[in-house]
Amino acid sequence: MKVGVIFGSSSDLKILKGVTDTLKEFGIDFFCEIISAHRMPEYLKEKISEMEDNGAEIFIAGAGLAAHLPGVIASYTLKPVIGVPISSAMDGLDSLLSIVQMPSGIPVATVGIDKGKNAAILAAEILSIKYSELKTKLKESRQKKIESILKENKNLKDKI
Amino acid sequence: MKVGVIFGSSSDLKILKGVTDTLKEFGIDFFCEIISAHRMPEYLKEKISEMEDNGAEIFIAGAGLAAHLPGVIASYTLKPVIGVPISSAMDGLDSLLSIVQMPSGIPVATVGIDKGKNAAILAAEILSIKYSELKTKLKESRQKKIESILKENKNLKDKI
Amino acid sequence: MKVGVIFGSSSDLKILKGVTDTLKEFGIDFFCEIISAHRMPEYLKEKISEMEDNGAEIFIAGAGLAAHLPGVIASYTLKPVIGVPISSAMDGLDSLLSIVQMPSGIPVATVGIDKGKNAAILAAEILSIKYSELKTKLKESRQKKIESILKENKNLKDKI
Amino acid sequence: MKVGVIFGSSSDLKILKGVTDTLKEFGIDFFCEIISAHRMPEYLKEKISEMEDNGAEIFIAGAGLAAHLPGVIASYTLKPVIGVPISSAMDGLDSLLSIVQMPSGIPVATVGIDKGKNAAILAAEILSIKYSELKTKLKESRQKKIESILKENKNLKDKI
Amino acid sequence: MKVGVIFGSSSDLKILKGVTDTLKEFGIDFFCEIISAHRMPEYLKEKISEMEDNGAEIFIAGAGLAAHLPGVIASYTLKPVIGVPISSAMDGLDSLLSIVQMPSGIPVATVGIDKGKNAAILAAEILSIKYSELKTKLKESRQKKIESILKENKNLKDKI
Amino acid sequence: MKVGVIFGSSSDLKILKGVTDTLKEFGIDFFCEIISAHRMPEYLKEKISEMEDNGAEIFIAGAGLAAHLPGVIASYTLKPVIGVPISSAMDGLDSLLSIVQMPSGIPVATVGIDKGKNAAILAAEILSIKYSELKTKLKESRQKKIESILKENKNLKDKI
Amino acid sequence: MKVGVIFGSSSDLKILKGVTDTLKEFGIDFFCEIISAHRMPEYLKEKISEMEDNGAEIFIAGAGLAAHLPGVIASYTLKPVIGVPISSAMDGLDSLLSIVQMPSGIPVATVGIDKGKNAAILAAEILSIKYSELKTKLKESRQKKIESILKENKNLKDKI
Amino acid sequence: MKVGVIFGSSSDLKILKGVTDTLKEFGIDFFCEIISAHRMPEYLKEKISEMEDNGAEIFIAGAGLAAHLPGVIASYTLKPVIGVPISSAMDGLDSLLSIVQMPSGIPVATVGIDKGKNAAILAAEILSIKYSELKTKLKESRQKKIESILKENKNLKDKI
Repeated sequence: MKVGVIFGSSSDLKILKGVTDTLKEFGIDFFCEIISAHRMPEYLKEKISEMEDNGAEIFIAGAGLAAHLPGVIASYTLKPVIGVPISSAMDGLDSLLSIVQMPSGIPVATVGIDKGKNAAILAAEILSIKYSELKTKLKESRQKKIESILKENKNLKDKI
Repeated sequence: MKVGVIFGSSSDLKILKGVTDTLKEFGIDFFCEIISAHRMPEYLKEKISEMEDNGAEIFIAGAGLAAHLPGVIASYTLKPVIGVPISSAMDGLDSLLSIVQMPSGIPVATVGIDKGKNAAILAAEILSIKYSELKTKLKESRQKKIESILKENKNLKDKI
Repeated sequence: MKVGVIFGSSSDLKILKGVTDTLKEFGIDFFCEIISAHRMPEYLKEKISEMEDNGAEIFIAGAGLAAHLPGVIASYTLKPVIGVPISSAMDGLDSLLSIVQMPSGIPVATVGIDKGKNAAILAAEILSIKYSELKTKLKESRQKKIESILKENKNLKDKI
Repeated sequence: MKVGVIFGSSSDLKILKGVTDTLKEFGIDFFCEIISAHRMPEYLKEKISEMEDNGAEIFIAGAGLAAHLPGVIASYTLKPVIGVPISSAMDGLDSLLSIVQMPSGIPVATVGIDKGKNAAILAAEILSIKYSELKTKLKESRQKKIESILKENKNLKDKI
Repeated sequence: MKVGVIFGSSSDLKILKGVTDTLKEFGIDFFCEIISAHRMPEYLKEKISEMEDNGAEIFIAGAGLAAHLPGVIASYTLKPVIGVPISSAMDGLDSLLSIVQMPSGIPVATVGIDKGKNAAILAAEILSIKYSELKTKLKESRQKKIESILKENKNLKDKI
Repeated sequence: MKVGVIFGSSSDLKILKGVTDTLKEFGIDFFCEIISAHRMPEYLKEKISEMEDNGAEIFIAGAGLAAHLPGVIASYTLKPVIGVPISSAMDGLDSLLSIVQMPSGIPVATVGIDKGKNAAILAAEILSIKYSELKTKLKESRQKKIESILKENKNLKDKI
Repeated sequence: MKVGVIFGSSSDLKILKGVTDTLKEFGIDFFCEIISAHRMPEYLKEKISEMEDNGAEIFIAGAGLAAHLPGVIASYTLKPVIGVPISSAMDGLDSLLSIVQMPSGIPVATVGIDKGKNAAILAAEILSIKYSELKTKLKESRQKKIESILKENKNLKDKI
Repeated sequence: MKVGVIFGSSSDLKILKGVTDTLKEFGIDFFCEIISAHRMPEYLKEKISEMEDNGAEIFIAGAGLAAHLPGVIASYTLKPVIGVPISSAMDGLDSLLSIVQMPSGIPVATVGIDKGKNAAILAAEILSIKYSELKTKLKESRQKKIESILKENKNLKDKI
């Protein structure tokens, strides 16, 4: 199982790493490229095609400002595209609206602003429909977080 | 292949029908319920469980205002949840932010405001990873729309 | 008299302390937990129940982003729930709208963004209906603040 | 048990009736006045005093635009004040922010835009701390709504 | 002198006509197509190329929602692209931000929301750098509007 | 000629000094107080009265958040009130709307966010209607700023 | 005492009449013109000059969209300029920000969106500093409104 | 070929340099001035005239807050005006709306917030209609950026 990860700029590296580190945790392979939707439209098209030929079943795309990348990818593939709005101006409102408000027929599965990790978890949930081995990992991932919160609660009384 | 469709209120029936009509077009079965996340938390939990037991592999949830429904469903299942923000106030900005800005760990795949049809298409794209027969339908659906636009272009010169 | 204080994340500790320190000033007992509405829905439900059984008469809930916690608590109790929107993105607008725009039937008493102290004062005002000893403390609290402002005025001329 | 209901303008009569009708359903007595915070500050102060002398234990205040009324009432009383933002311009955003963003020390318990009914339910929840007979009514009120939603679900299949 | 006019949907026909009628007033030829950036990316690319081959020196593109069309055109041409945000949701804020907030390197010359006529006037101003005969027409167009305002002023006293 | 300057909090001292320093430049006397509209309504009323008795002909009021102070002053006086929105949260949008969106009958002359200096200049412009000696100072003030910009232009070529 | 009233477009006639009718109520003379700041900058400058020569002591300017008119008037006069933002798009937010956010040195006294009447009352308040006969009228105007609200209160019980 | 570059304040020097450095890269001559639209309207008018007489074929104008400068320039010339919104408050939303929302008849070609470089590239694109030697430079400029992104991709695997 493979995911195509495409980000619009290397300045969003921290959020990109949130995506790829989480995919690694789930044991999901990925292709990863920095491609500007507006500067390299032909290259983008080729790479999408190449990733699909090599087994990509979902795409995760992150972009800021007038963030067209996720929508442009969605126009070149019939596979699900997950969009990550990135906050480089206006607290990310420009990016969020540019990604989520897609016209009828070409949806982008949008996650929260700067939430690269959530994009990877959503990809894992989607892939778990076909690859049921991911279900245990998803369960464990939630459980681990719960335990860390419960541990915090134990120490809470000292802090307040 | 089955989808669990849950809307927060019957006042959003037109958008709900956008979801269910499109699922029918793709030949996807669905369960459908009106459930208020805030008034019927127990009933919601049971229904999610029941839908999962009966084969639901994705959930589509639509809600307006402080739209918690998609996020609450996501907290009870490990399956992907698609959220449809519904504009009942503030042009839907309240609903969009309440759905898309989920915390780390529990993503909701958000589509555009009032875009019920897109939620169903996204569900079809997701299911097509496992059920490849959906791919042809997705391709045809896009093709049909293209042809209708091309037809419009023929008549455009008379209109402008 | 007791208040159940539940925050969505320990990263909001400063605002949480604003709540608990102010409750202490008023001599109001409280239970305090970090619980993620989306990751621990069952645990949340149990804790609400447990706090109510042990005498909690109001709940104060703080959360950021798509802040469902106050609304989810309100769906499990008939007691008043005070919500504190926390600004972790978008200046807290996402959190404010997710908390205040509750649907008909399940209100959340929302205070200003990051205003943990005000949530505690509101709780004191509400409890003072039943526990009239709080009235004097509320009066004193306002009086003290007035005196500090009047003192500032005395020094104002040197500063401007 | 009594509530002081003060609205800023008679043009908001429909939302005001949402408040008073709901209070009647819960068997809660109320005083009701139209008072402009800016045009009649003295009269407002007197009426608050008079309502308190006659037993008002909570105030509900509704106003639009630069909605100062709830905050001004809060400055004259130590009792809890519930604020209802009314949408007469900018989808109610001006009114919401004018009511909810109160400074430290003087909270207003804010409900959703135009949600008069929720203000009354919140008042009932608050009063139920002291007047336990309201608890049954609150429970019944939620139950009734649940039953009406369940009934809708029965007819849902014919509609979609 | 020729302009390529491309709109994302025929539902924006009134604004499209604002563009084409104004171009006609200035005696500027144009090509006109309805093309969905997301559904017909290949067709869009071909048409841009075809329009350029046939003499288009500027592009005007109108689109709503997550309005990628102007930016996508800008990615396929080095000629100036004028973008018209169209208000189909959120008062056009989504469309405005999706068009104007282009990343470094690929600008779109954005005009006001729904201002198709202004897009055409801007095209005329741009073309007038090369085709000086347009200057007189631009001057006359402003003069005509001034005269109509002056005429209104004569009748103003009767109206107020 | 005298101006009553009232700010809601001493945390806005820098902007307050922008007001008072500019008034001094114009040779306008002023009274200056920190008064919380919500905590000290009676004291506020007395001070307004006292300032008026001592010759205040205009009021300048600065406040942040749900900024009621300028509007409350306007409700106690028939003299012009200038409001300065202060940005303590949400980039000052909450404060701007709370001040400018006054209901019919009680206007507040609102200046830009954090623009204390402009409030003082507006006061000078208003007073200059009666006190014509201010006209020369207003002219000189603008002239001085123009000269400083012209001087900058001389050095501009070295910087770019 | 005279006011120069300049509106950007005759499509705002209702709000313009709110200004002029209210000025008439206060017995204040006015000059009134429709002038487009962008189309007739020279004419605007002349008219401002002409109005000043004929005794205008204040200007009231109303405009929508990128509403530059009040600011441009302020750049040509040292007299106070009152700006009325007019909602023709985006609920008037564009117009409000274009008017109120003036740079240091050139303030515009901004009133609420579409609040033509308030602009006239503010003008009356300002003029009352010099022309004390206006004070009685301002007092009466507020009193009349109060009486009408008190009358409404008498009938309120029948309506709720 | 020459461009008139006018900025409202020298505090925006970094963005101004983005404009002038990029113009230099394209070998485009320019005139450059700091002029306050509101403080120096006459000087602004003269400078526009002077720049036009000396060959300016386009104007680029940058301003913040209630950014009238680009629109005022557009009112004095028939040449295309490119506007750069500058973020000094409210994340630049005030400036963006003040520039882009121009009324019918007087467009401003608006680029993204703080995007000085894009304004210069747009100017190059516009001038390339007449001066075809710019086409090669525009192509090279895009190509150079593409190569730098491709180079980043080579190193990407080490970073993630």
